[in-house]
Amino acid sequence: MNKKMNLLMFSGEYDKALAALLLANTAKELEVDVTMFFAFWGLFLVRDPEKATSDDKTLYEKMFGMMTPKGPEELPLSRMNMAGLGKQMLLGMMEDDKTPSLTDFLNGARKKGVKFYACKLSVDVMGFKEDELLPEVEVITAKEYLADALASDMQLFI
Amino acid sequence: MNKKMNLLMFSGEYDKALAALLLANTAKELEVDVTMFFAFWGLFLVRDPEKATSDDKTLYEKMFGMMTPKGPEELPLSRMNMAGLGKQMLLGMMEDDKTPSLTDFLNGARKKGVKFYACKLSVDVMGFKEDELLPEVEVITAKEYLADALASDMQLFI
Amino acid sequence: MNKKMNLLMFSGEYDKALAALLLANTAKELEVDVTMFFAFWGLFLVRDPEKATSDDKTLYEKMFGMMTPKGPEELPLSRMNMAGLGKQMLLGMMEDDKTPSLTDFLNGARKKGVKFYACKLSVDVMGFKEDELLPEVEVITAKEYLADALASDMQLFI
Repeated sequence: MNKKMNLLMFSGEYDKALAALLLANTAKELEVDVTMFFAFWGLFLVRDPEKATSDDKTLYEKMFGMMTPKGPEELPLSRMNMAGLGKQMLLGMMEDDKTPSLTDFLNGARKKGVKFYACKLSVDVMGFKEDELLPEVEVITAKEYLADALASDMQLFI
Repeated sequence: MNKKMNLLMFSGEYDKALAALLLANTAKELEVDVTMFFAFWGLFLVRDPEKATSDDKTLYEKMFGMMTPKGPEELPLSRMNMAGLGKQMLLGMMEDDKTPSLTDFLNGARKKGVKFYACKLSVDVMGFKEDELLPEVEVITAKEYLADALASDMQLFI
Repeated sequence: MNKKMNLLMFSGEYDKALAALLLANTAKELEVDVTMFFAFWGLFLVRDPEKATSDDKTLYEKMFGMMTPKGPEELPLSRMNMAGLGKQMLLGMMEDDKTPSLTDFLNGARKKGVKFYACKLSVDVMGFKEDELLPEVEVITAKEYLADALASDMQLFI
């Protein structure tokens, strides 16, 4: 199709991440170029669960790093999370339907060559180190994001 | 105008649905082609309030079907819902201004020929039967959604 | 670049407003034309903190006006607000990094000539008077918003 899709991942929620990654994977199957730009809470989705660190962080950054989800499976639902109960129900329904997990969708997107970018301002404010993110993630500025988004055929804020 | 707008309805909230349907109706008045693609919580908006069923569903699907809003008027607000109090306040203000209700906007969109699609993956995971949705709704895949969205002049994720 | 970006500001949350205004300011630096259309909760961002009034309002409108944020600094976070504690943490981290405040970003956008529009239906329903909004804000209809959005190179619903 020779088209290009740009997703700005702002929210760090399981269900929205699932929707975004389903779109990203499906777009790649249609040979559409896909960029995902992770900002604010969206960064939690591309944290490497094995690599959280407290080194070289301010007190706020340490607290923030500890209180927030480490990687895809720890993300809450955007609605009906009910302290995790609603999420268990959704995961149960997904399993009954043999739907792949969020981690599967994320790994699919990594393998298919979806481009992963992290917002420099968010990374700086939240005190994340590049090592704490998945190796595919490149940190870029809002200016670089906008140039990519404006050159795309569709853009979503998720 | 010979233009095309595509709305991905992800959230199942009264205020966001109102905004989306106002845009959809207004676009049709401008002779813009409109597609609404309902996914996840967005499906609650196109449930037929008269047609909820528990037949042929897993335990999770039954519970989920019962715990979630049946049609437009049961949707909560995205903010200040306050167990329905904030919503009553908004409805009161809308009535004072003689603003049409969400159901009116929805029926307007149905009459004006807005195209209604439901996301196949969401329908399967949540266990909805096609009979439980409004008759205008057609179930399509993420691939079909993307082809439509990429051919549109504007796309929003709501 | 001779491009045009249109942001529909629906949510009235500190973090989302920060993201939107960062994009708006950055776009202006790239000589991209920017329109921000404030609807529903988004209106709280362009309330003038000095100019709230109860004159000529219904009871619901008075209550609503009093219960809701007056201007940018009173907006809550979309997540982890925790009765303001999470917001203090974010503000602390922003200060440590010398990141400008939301008010700074808003004033930057005003100076750089980002076009500010408010949704007529929302203004009417919520009972805001034009005097209560920043002087740059012009009230327009959904039809006018759509014409602008459809003529833009990218549109986001935030």
